[in-house]
Amino acid sequence: MVTQIEHDVVTGTPRTSTGVHTYTFDSLPLQRGGEFGPITLAYETWGTLNAARDNAILIAHALTGSSHAYDEQRPGAAKAAWWNLLIGPGRPFDTSRYFVICSNILGGCYGSTGPSSLDPRTGQPYGMHFPIVTIRDMVQAQRRLIEHLGVRQLTMVAGGSIGGQQALEWAVAFPELVQKVAVVAATASLTAQAVAFSEVQRQAIMADPHWLGGNYEPGRGPDAGLAIARMLAMITYQSEESMELRFSRKPAWRGSASAPGGWSDFGGRFDVEDYLYYQGTSLVRRFDANSYLYISRAMDLYDVSDGHPSLEAALRRVHSKALFIGIRSDFLFPAARVRWLADQMRSLGGDATYVELDSPHGHDAFLKEWEQMTGALNLLKE
Amino acid sequence: MVTQIEHDVVTGTPRTSTGVHTYTFDSLPLQRGGEFGPITLAYETWGTLNAARDNAILIAHALTGSSHAYDEQRPGAAKAAWWNLLIGPGRPFDTSRYFVICSNILGGCYGSTGPSSLDPRTGQPYGMHFPIVTIRDMVQAQRRLIEHLGVRQLTMVAGGSIGGQQALEWAVAFPELVQKVAVVAATASLTAQAVAFSEVQRQAIMADPHWLGGNYEPGRGPDAGLAIARMLAMITYQSEESMELRFSRKPAWRGSASAPGGWSDFGGRFDVEDYLYYQGTSLVRRFDANSYLYISRAMDLYDVSDGHPSLEAALRRVHSKALFIGIRSDFLFPAARVRWLADQMRSLGGDATYVELDSPHGHDAFLKEWEQMTGALNLLKE
Repeated sequence: MVTQIEHDVVTGTPRTSTGVHTYTFDSLPLQRGGEFGPITLAYETWGTLNAARDNAILIAHALTGSSHAYDEQRPGAAKAAWWNLLIGPGRPFDTSRYFVICSNILGGCYGSTGPSSLDPRTGQPYGMHFPIVTIRDMVQAQRRLIEHLGVRQLTMVAGGSIGGQQALEWAVAFPELVQKVAVVAATASLTAQAVAFSEVQRQAIMADPHWLGGNYEPGRGPDAGLAIARMLAMITYQSEESMELRFSRKPAWRGSASAPGGWSDFGGRFDVEDYLYYQGTSLVRRFDANSYLYISRAMDLYDVSDGHPSLEAALRRVHSKALFIGIRSDFLFPAARVRWLADQMRSLGGDATYVELDSPHGHDAFLKEWEQMTGALNLLKE
Repeated sequence: MVTQIEHDVVTGTPRTSTGVHTYTFDSLPLQRGGEFGPITLAYETWGTLNAARDNAILIAHALTGSSHAYDEQRPGAAKAAWWNLLIGPGRPFDTSRYFVICSNILGGCYGSTGPSSLDPRTGQPYGMHFPIVTIRDMVQAQRRLIEHLGVRQLTMVAGGSIGGQQALEWAVAFPELVQKVAVVAATASLTAQAVAFSEVQRQAIMADPHWLGGNYEPGRGPDAGLAIARMLAMITYQSEESMELRFSRKPAWRGSASAPGGWSDFGGRFDVEDYLYYQGTSLVRRFDANSYLYISRAMDLYDVSDGHPSLEAALRRVHSKALFIGIRSDFLFPAARVRWLADQMRSLGGDATYVELDSPHGHDAFLKEWEQMTGALNLLKE
């Protein structure tokens, strides 16, 4: 099943998007119990699957990402797609050699089944009746897609943040399928501090009266709550250092963005505030609040050792050549914990390399430091 | 004017509180223009002013603090008052030698004039008609109180966080009055990141429909918004390290606290989440949301150089013996910036000492590390 239609998350109206396909399957057993379906995954591919069907690369996106990791029409525009400068001929994810796949994750709102999808039993959006889905469930759903596409083996699975959790889970769950894995800015599980930041964001959404227990109509959701959640998230994606470099205590010079609470400019407006208002309201236009709740919760709940006798037992399953990329200034997925994971894997006999991005940009560096990312990912080349 | 009555911030009903006095004066010129009054300051004192009237110590509290820095009835109970173990006979703020004063700040809700006070012109609470007050205004108001109490010279001004900003401002504004100053976990001005955290908190309050533009009735305010603000603040007062030590990924074992958004236990409840719910709802019972907005904004707006030709010019005014205390794990007022301030003052010829608390407890360490705080403050003894 292939379609060129994507649904706009806010208005619910379909909009055309070149290259987005969908695959629907009946049902998936979920990690936390029960079966769920039908499940549709929206995905994009670049490059060609070879005759041996073993040259595929799977790219996994982060919280608010989509299948649009690469923009073939604008391959030089850094912001046209989320890993645009890493994908394409001659780039680390070389589309002249590899069949590169990126799918919107289960629970998302960019064409894959998520809480804003219609529940076939009721004809209404699932809302909070959507089941709790985990990183493992997302990976199991991707596995079905890979099978559907005829892929026999994955040359590589790569992703950052929640995408990095997925990459790690792929290597643990399907060691025989994954030759190489690139886990970027992700750890074995979140810190208490990161869970705490995440829960404050969800509470901001849920406290918004427009959330209505998740039963809001498309386009009439908890906009203020979601914008506040995004404002906070943006702080955690950056760093004290990068915010100081960019904003310090400068006053706002545009001052055009609306504050989610309706009030602002309380004794003036700092540039950093204007920036956060802008980021908050921008996300509201493109993302579903319930998807935000489900995906951020999957991030919190992820622990690579779940269902295994121990963390060591989980990591010992990995046979892939593994690259772990940490970011010096990341406080959401601290570099020390990414490095620790690589060290653990190596001490268990695994082939694990750790590279640290020397960047002030915090967690977001995996979406900004193109040269360093290219250099690191090239370490996985044959 | 002395009274033993304090108003309960949430219910608006007066409650008795031993030892809380008030002083009311007509009017104060404000840093951002205009005159404001009448102003009442609630305060407590311990010890006795000597005949020379030069043995007073002024203690300044942080965002949600009150004049109750010391509990004479329970001097050994760490949580009975916010600096309880630092004040008293033989302690750094030695009540057998000094006349120790702590007043609730202008803008507060523990007896001093703030947005929840009645505007005499309307008979209604000021709400958002309260003027923007700055750290400097708070200090100027304290100056009036000190005069009223007959104090001729302050042996010391000390405070942490926003209280540290006040201590610093005292030394700059009234160099002839302040012999020694202890600036704890405070800097010349906030980082962009800290302002950003602060604004997310305010937006959470203002987005709560019960906020009503600040015109809520006592006890019917933006409880969810304020609780969410507090949840976020509590993260910034701690550290990744301390939260990991205390909570890591442990599940909640009580699970008794209510989540501000009404929904929780989304795939289980982590202990850190339960803790944050508890902290959030606890603050709602004891603090006014509009005071939270005004005081947090004063913190953001503070820049010691304001109104001076330069930062150096401001710091050069200080004649006090100055102690700066930073906290290794503080990311709201980073230790490096506290140290920098001490270095600056010393390089300008000032008598400035820097001490760093080796604590995992983040910003809150100045309310927890009694031994290290005692050791540091004793450096200021004659």
